[in-house]
Amino acid sequence: MSEVNKTELGQLGEFGLIRHLTDNIKLKHTSTLKGVGDDAAVLDFNNKKTVVTTDLLLEGIHFDLTYTPLKHLGYKAVVVNVSDVYAMNATPKQITVSLGLSSKMSVEALDELYEGIYAACDFYNVDLVGGDTTSSLTGLTISVTALGEGDEDKLCYRSGAKPNDLICVSGDLGAAYMGLQLLERERKIYADNPQMQPDLSGYDYILSRQLKPEARKEVVELLSKIDVVPTSMIDISDGLSSEVMHICAQSKTGCRLYEDKIPIDPSTSMMAEEMGINPIVTALNGGEDYELLFTISQSDYEKFKEVAEANIYIVGHITEESKGNYLVTNADQEVELQAQGWNPIKNND
Amino acid sequence: MSEVNKTELGQLGEFGLIRHLTDNIKLKHTSTLKGVGDDAAVLDFNNKKTVVTTDLLLEGIHFDLTYTPLKHLGYKAVVVNVSDVYAMNATPKQITVSLGLSSKMSVEALDELYEGIYAACDFYNVDLVGGDTTSSLTGLTISVTALGEGDEDKLCYRSGAKPNDLICVSGDLGAAYMGLQLLERERKIYADNPQMQPDLSGYDYILSRQLKPEARKEVVELLSKIDVVPTSMIDISDGLSSEVMHICAQSKTGCRLYEDKIPIDPSTSMMAEEMGINPIVTALNGGEDYELLFTISQSDYEKFKEVAEANIYIVGHITEESKGNYLVTNADQEVELQAQGWNPIKNND
Repeated sequence: MSEVNKTELGQLGEFGLIRHLTDNIKLKHTSTLKGVGDDAAVLDFNNKKTVVTTDLLLEGIHFDLTYTPLKHLGYKAVVVNVSDVYAMNATPKQITVSLGLSSKMSVEALDELYEGIYAACDFYNVDLVGGDTTSSLTGLTISVTALGEGDEDKLCYRSGAKPNDLICVSGDLGAAYMGLQLLERERKIYADNPQMQPDLSGYDYILSRQLKPEARKEVVELLSKIDVVPTSMIDISDGLSSEVMHICAQSKTGCRLYEDKIPIDPSTSMMAEEMGINPIVTALNGGEDYELLFTISQSDYEKFKEVAEANIYIVGHITEESKGNYLVTNADQEVELQAQGWNPIKNND
Repeated sequence: MSEVNKTELGQLGEFGLIRHLTDNIKLKHTSTLKGVGDDAAVLDFNNKKTVVTTDLLLEGIHFDLTYTPLKHLGYKAVVVNVSDVYAMNATPKQITVSLGLSSKMSVEALDELYEGIYAACDFYNVDLVGGDTTSSLTGLTISVTALGEGDEDKLCYRSGAKPNDLICVSGDLGAAYMGLQLLERERKIYADNPQMQPDLSGYDYILSRQLKPEARKEVVELLSKIDVVPTSMIDISDGLSSEVMHICAQSKTGCRLYEDKIPIDPSTSMMAEEMGINPIVTALNGGEDYELLFTISQSDYEKFKEVAEANIYIVGHITEESKGNYLVTNADQEVELQAQGWNPIKNND
């Protein structure tokens, strides 16, 4: 068997490395006037509004390279950003990618990371237009900024929900969180006993939701097709509870969610029960689902029914602010929602 | 004496921290439709082109907290980005700031960092419109993206230089590099002998060039005032040699620089000689000057002479590509230029 190729980053030098990583870029958009290769990229959004969002991913905090394939990591780094653009009811068009690389990383490993980045660029139809590549004394650092365009009268903020609006979710929740719990469990078993092989069979769905999440571009396309503009929208990165509370806080409303309406995949429930976790907690307080949470006025509800592919779940409704934020359980109890979303600052002591 | 206040980041929580840091933002631009507080910021550049650039700063690679005051670091993180926007002959309008914070950092320390960020936002007249705040297992990570606007017919790329164009520099070079050498020397002396107090008196200029660099916005304003559009432009972050070679490579030209024309401050020369470094090397291969390097057609030269404040140095001229890239020394020798700019990948072994 031949040895795996390992080329040190230093062999290419900074500019050689950037060329190596960006030489094959083919720009997709007329809005990209100038991509990689100058002090800045130049974009032309014409009469559309520009949307911009950014995310920072750090090794050991947002990902663990012992179980995250680099290609998936690159893909996910793009997804979490374009998801924010979709959450504005806008269309992502360009990204920039900055990387801090430890010297132990090989060119081949970096190529794998970029394979994932470019795969996501293709799938979400965005141009990579710039970035910064530097060395890191510690772990891998990935900073992605996404730009997109939207029509002013279609942009969705968190602040537009009104009492009696329906609360919608674009897909099932909690799976990514259970995928992470599973990976963590198997990593610990492996650390204690390296002879044990991780047993991940039969868990494909929750693992793929954690390792290869997708942003819900088809939801934004659907909204455009059926001519519905949500009154508010946000992407679910920190759990349903946190996100609906962001909408309620900024819209100055309350909400009622219904436990029996919240979509949870059977494999998520199974894994949660196996680990002694109430499945509804994974949906409310787990994270990284990247589904869209949005509110619509009741009069728009019929439009969704007309389209077969509209896989939208109504999970509750908006109330007056004074009514508070509550979950109505299957036992018909009202439990106050709490923002127990993933708190990266607190968790790191 | 009262103890210095130290509030742990965890006490505020993620959302509390973001509010604490962004509550007092006052947006300056009509192009900023929506700033911090949603999934993405929304901008409106109307009929102008959008310019976007990003930089990643990592502790231990780009800054050393033992001698970099946090306020200066925050300021500099903005400067290096808006400098790239000016290098396009565009005007910076918005920035996003993402931070990776170690748990040992206090809220007060973070406030200092943001004081510098906001001071730069005021000076360069940009809106802070978004970002991401997360914890870091290791050092401080700062990722800034700057957006700006420019007129299509005034944007300057690296690729437009023509033979016989004059090569211009907006200010003296090498000082920031010598400032860094001085700080490094004093840090080592202090490490060996903590009783010794660092002796930095009389070196204010080179220290301020390193610790509090400024981007050359007045140069872009001047160009607009005298109605000159450079044929090419770049900011000098990696030393004159590297940068002029970028212009020549992308413009498919050569160049001649003249040693006696390259502006070096007397305090830079003094410090260089004290350390046994040829001052011209600090200008050619030092970094972080953030002056603008640009080329103009000879016919535009007279326009600069008409304005008293035009402190522009002509350091050489563009040639045919076949003539190569050379420095003509004071001894009238031709020395081939080499891209020995700061290479963050190679340096980190």
